[in-house]
Amino acid sequence: MKTLKIAALAVALCLGILGFSNASLGHPDDQAAIRAVLTAQQTAWNDGRVDAFLEGYWHSDELTFSGSSGVARGFNAVRERYQKSYPDRQEMGKLDFSDLEVRLLGSDAALVLGKWHLTREKGDVGGVFSLVFQRFQGGWRIVHDHTSVVAPPTS
Amino acid sequence: MKTLKIAALAVALCLGILGFSNASLGHPDDQAAIRAVLTAQQTAWNDGRVDAFLEGYWHSDELTFSGSSGVARGFNAVRERYQKSYPDRQEMGKLDFSDLEVRLLGSDAALVLGKWHLTREKGDVGGVFSLVFQRFQGGWRIVHDHTSVVAPPTS
Repeated sequence: MKTLKIAALAVALCLGILGFSNASLGHPDDQAAIRAVLTAQQTAWNDGRVDAFLEGYWHSDELTFSGSSGVARGFNAVRERYQKSYPDRQEMGKLDFSDLEVRLLGSDAALVLGKWHLTREKGDVGGVFSLVFQRFQGGWRIVHDHTSVVAPPTS
Repeated sequence: MKTLKIAALAVALCLGILGFSNASLGHPDDQAAIRAVLTAQQTAWNDGRVDAFLEGYWHSDELTFSGSSGVARGFNAVRERYQKSYPDRQEMGKLDFSDLEVRLLGSDAALVLGKWHLTREKGDVGGVFSLVFQRFQGGWRIVHDHTSVVAPPTS
């Protein structure tokens, strides 16, 4: 009996470790969960709900947003940047994300490339973005955003 | 003796799994290894050796480089972009990377933010970049680069 108990304890320990390892390997629906964050952002934007759009970002002083004006650091700075650049529905226009490409980086991080386009009466604008997502207890959030405006090709 | 053998086998199995897990947790000098890639790039650039500079990038069709001209895809496209934009030493100028910030994303990936500056007779240029590194057998390589020009502040 002692033999069995020791072996059973050892095996249970092994299974516990294996279970822990598997949990950290990520779920097969990570891609879908990440895409859902972006779909929710697009819907919120097109409803004029900037705060709901911002839910996709990590609420942290370590959140970063890079672009042609340099680096904004912290959730509040990113929110201020959006509020300043898009004060009303006319500036916000209608947002479309396209060409999304989700590249998992291990079990708890991902790189997402994509294109953004704002259809606006005052003139359309768009470009490309690179997002780094990390998995948190509340789900996947953007921890870094690098966005560029791309001029439309001249015909 | 049988008890001891079974327990020893189970413990060895556990240690094997633990060893495997620890190997994938990364080395404490990952930060240094990643910074060394960027230092080597800066040195190569300032010696006029663009091919050596490009060694920092993943030699793959999946390498991506985003910016105000959209997304270049594949190592060859990234090399062509550099060769076209910086055909000679005068265009290349003297490169400085600064404000480097390495954020590990799990054991085999990292996000690096930083500033770049080219000192040139024809006029300086610079901005910010976001790099995603991944660990390969040959070391850490850039798998995605998003670079922006930032206009200097008007005084």
